[in-house]
Amino acid sequence: MNTWKMDRMDISPTSQVEPKPRAYVMGITGSPYLCDKAKEILKVADIIVGWQASISIVESLILDKMIFIQDPTQYREILKTATRYAKLHNQNIVLLVLDDPLVYSVPVQYFQETFEDFTLDFVPCSSRFQLAAAAAGVSLENTLMVVFSPDKNGGIDLDLLETNRTRMIQAFNQGSNVIISSDIEQSTEDIAEFLLSQKVDRTTQVLLCEELATPAEKLSWTTLGASASYNSHWNTIMVIPQKASQNEKVKSQIR
Amino acid sequence: MNTWKMDRMDISPTSQVEPKPRAYVMGITGSPYLCDKAKEILKVADIIVGWQASISIVESLILDKMIFIQDPTQYREILKTATRYAKLHNQNIVLLVLDDPLVYSVPVQYFQETFEDFTLDFVPCSSRFQLAAAAAGVSLENTLMVVFSPDKNGGIDLDLLETNRTRMIQAFNQGSNVIISSDIEQSTEDIAEFLLSQKVDRTTQVLLCEELATPAEKLSWTTLGASASYNSHWNTIMVIPQKASQNEKVKSQIR
Repeated sequence: MNTWKMDRMDISPTSQVEPKPRAYVMGITGSPYLCDKAKEILKVADIIVGWQASISIVESLILDKMIFIQDPTQYREILKTATRYAKLHNQNIVLLVLDDPLVYSVPVQYFQETFEDFTLDFVPCSSRFQLAAAAAGVSLENTLMVVFSPDKNGGIDLDLLETNRTRMIQAFNQGSNVIISSDIEQSTEDIAEFLLSQKVDRTTQVLLCEELATPAEKLSWTTLGASASYNSHWNTIMVIPQKASQNEKVKSQIR
Repeated sequence: MNTWKMDRMDISPTSQVEPKPRAYVMGITGSPYLCDKAKEILKVADIIVGWQASISIVESLILDKMIFIQDPTQYREILKTATRYAKLHNQNIVLLVLDDPLVYSVPVQYFQETFEDFTLDFVPCSSRFQLAAAAAGVSLENTLMVVFSPDKNGGIDLDLLETNRTRMIQAFNQGSNVIISSDIEQSTEDIAEFLLSQKVDRTTQVLLCEELATPAEKLSWTTLGASASYNSHWNTIMVIPQKASQNEKVKSQIR
């Protein structure tokens, strides 16, 4: 499944004297949000690993690199293969992740263990939560960020589901804004249905941010009631600002 | 105090048919973290407002713009002057802020009121909290972010001080990482002294991130005890990761 470029295979190990090669876990939200630091690192990288969605974003910058493309069925194995290859050849490796790696819910320890034979750096980016907050005009200071993600086997993580639902309704009832990253296992429809069952007002305004920072990006203000029967893209960030008044004001300013 | 460029003063209002000119509140952490979207917006902007520190970061990109430089004694007045000028001439205006505007503690309403005659957009950036989290290798998911800032007169905001101190010690005792943005009114020495007075262990490791993302950037791991007598730069982010073990592991990987 991985489509690395064979013409790089015969390049001998680099002659760097550094005891360990470098590994970068780099956040990628979308090409408009790519920063100069990320571009510089990609320039000196030897090996790039990531899902097709993130590879596509930086494609023009990594034409001369060895690329390992992750897929849903074996993304961990592909990362391991790439890491082993980088270690063997003493090469620098970049793992692209589809959000700031320190914001998204993959445990930091996972990255630290994966790259234990490397000097590890994290490269932050504007996360989808920040883009959604910017679009809705809500501050992240009084906002709960909730990430739904599958369990190790790609199924519904029932513990996480329960924890996130409890945190979500508590925070909203306590006066915080809530920004939720949906997933295949927990769509914005599911989230809206749950909140309605917890007596949150049907007319509460929400901003649905579908496929943020991609060419297909779609931002729509709607009500919680309506979003319970709207089939949004699986990669959607849902913003539920606290005050309808603030929301109304912002609504008129949305591009 | 504002040094706008007089050669722009005689340019007639733009002929755009849009009913309102555009205003952008743009986060700027440092030149390595400037993204393409921010550069594109700066290109089409007419007027730029910001502190010298943020103006310097984008200086080469705004040579042909009218620039209003804010200073500590009258930054609100200078912003008002720039905004009035932009409205009068129907021009696009960019306010540079030294962190993601949706993360830092200026209320969103302040920006919305300031730019009520404009179509307002927020432009996020990697915040100093994300850079500090990346440097320390801690996830922001289980982290309390604390921002100390002066009151309207530039003095110590006693309410905020009390609130932040309570939140800080509670979160740390409950097992969260804490990342704190210090300020002139509340230095990292003050913060360390307070935490020591609350029985936090003197040997707790902390990462001091001075002048993050600037050429003078300095990252130092030290102990909470030692940081109580270390005179850090006023623009310092202090990271207090929860687990000493994780901390030790990360320490060896810091650049």
